Amino acid sequence: MQLHGSPLSCSMATRIALLEAGAPFEYVEVDAPTKRTRDGADYREIHPLGLVPALRTDDGQLITENAAVLQYIADALPAAGLAPPAGSRERVRLQQWLSFIGTELHKGVYAPLLGSEVPDAVRSWALEKGLSRFDYLAHHLDGREFLLDRFSVADAYLVTVLTWSVATPIDLKKWPSLVAYLQRLQARPSVAAALHAERKLYGEELARHGRPVPAFLRPREAPAS
Amino acid sequence: MQLHGSPLSCSMATRIALLEAGAPFEYVEVDAPTKRTRDGADYREIHPLGLVPALRTDDGQLITENAAVLQYIADALPAAGLAPPAGSRERVRLQQWLSFIGTELHKGVYAPLLGSEVPDAVRSWALEKGLSRFDYLAHHLDGREFLLDRFSVADAYLVTVLTWSVATPIDLKKWPSLVAYLQRLQARPSVAAALHAERKLYGEELARHGRPVPAFLRPREAPAS
Repeated sequence: MQLHGSPLSCSMATRIALLEAGAPFEYVEVDAPTKRTRDGADYREIHPLGLVPALRTDDGQLITENAAVLQYIADALPAAGLAPPAGSRERVRLQQWLSFIGTELHKGVYAPLLGSEVPDAVRSWALEKGLSRFDYLAHHLDGREFLLDRFSVADAYLVTVLTWSVATPIDLKKWPSLVAYLQRLQARPSVAAALHAERKLYGEELARHGRPVPAFLRPREAPAS
Repeated sequence: MQLHGSPLSCSMATRIALLEAGAPFEYVEVDAPTKRTRDGADYREIHPLGLVPALRTDDGQLITENAAVLQYIADALPAAGLAPPAGSRERVRLQQWLSFIGTELHKGVYAPLLGSEVPDAVRSWALEKGLSRFDYLAHHLDGREFLLDRFSVADAYLVTVLTWSVATPIDLKKWPSLVAYLQRLQARPSVAAALHAERKLYGEELARHGRPVPAFLRPREAPAS
């Protein structure tokens, strides 16, 4: 499989899912500001909207949209147990969380906060509307390890979007269950490996465009002895 | 089944799906401005975020989020053929369109344009970002009757959101394939019946709150003879 993605964007969820399944894949990096792949090709010829992720399957089909890509991977690599069986009631719960993350968190809160050239009024509006979504999510995760009864592709998506909080005014400390969830998930080997790889690529992207490296990408200083 | 919805909101997609399947259901109307059901109960005690649709299944579970509710109905009432089989490649395409409609159209374009007390800067931002999504959709629907090869719950969702265009600055006439799709789908018996029922309820909601009836709800005048 071939994953078209941009470092630290929502396509990281697909990388996490593929790492969980131990599936080999080629990462085609899309430079987010220019929408060009690293070999200079125009990514809009692959996906006209320039959105990631886009997954090229081994038989040549292109799948877009997180909820579809993630369920495709779960069903194509069933041994990894990344989703409840297709058609089951638990799969409906997975779809509910994928939709909630995609609509209420990703598009409703984070996209306006993280987009470039977004007016301040848009950021304030998104932030004001968004906080109730975190209350709801924190209540669900209180006392739970994962969104469902075990790790699923919905967790791969959720840890990806919650990771963006450091680059926004959202202070997760208000919701201890979200802080605990994020720490726990970021320590999971697949997530830690994805974060390591994509932080490096994101730093390189910033350097290519002459943009400063934000604090959350800088290596932590050793504590004073 | 029991459908919690607000007239002409995205829960109309669920009504269309249930009408397509000929399934009996109870409609619990949620007054959108107050988030109270018509018997005065606080809908937030059913869904803390106050979002519709929420479907109560016959065994008492509550399912939220359009993509999940619509796939649940398709799988619970398979004779209606409202979705490709669970786990099939075509189901992935359905999930792709449900996600595109939910994230890029509903949350990305229409929600900012239709929300109450949304700053003008937010509306301009959504409109500017959104138009490329209509180009993409219009290109896909050019020469096609439905999003997939036959009617599916994704069409129920798409016709619902495109119907909102009349209350926004989005002028669908720029995209003839979208105008043709919308006319064709609105003439489909299930959609026509849903629109008829929900326009009436929406008019009553406006009247309860002393708000004027917008032009698109007024009966068309007979042409001058």
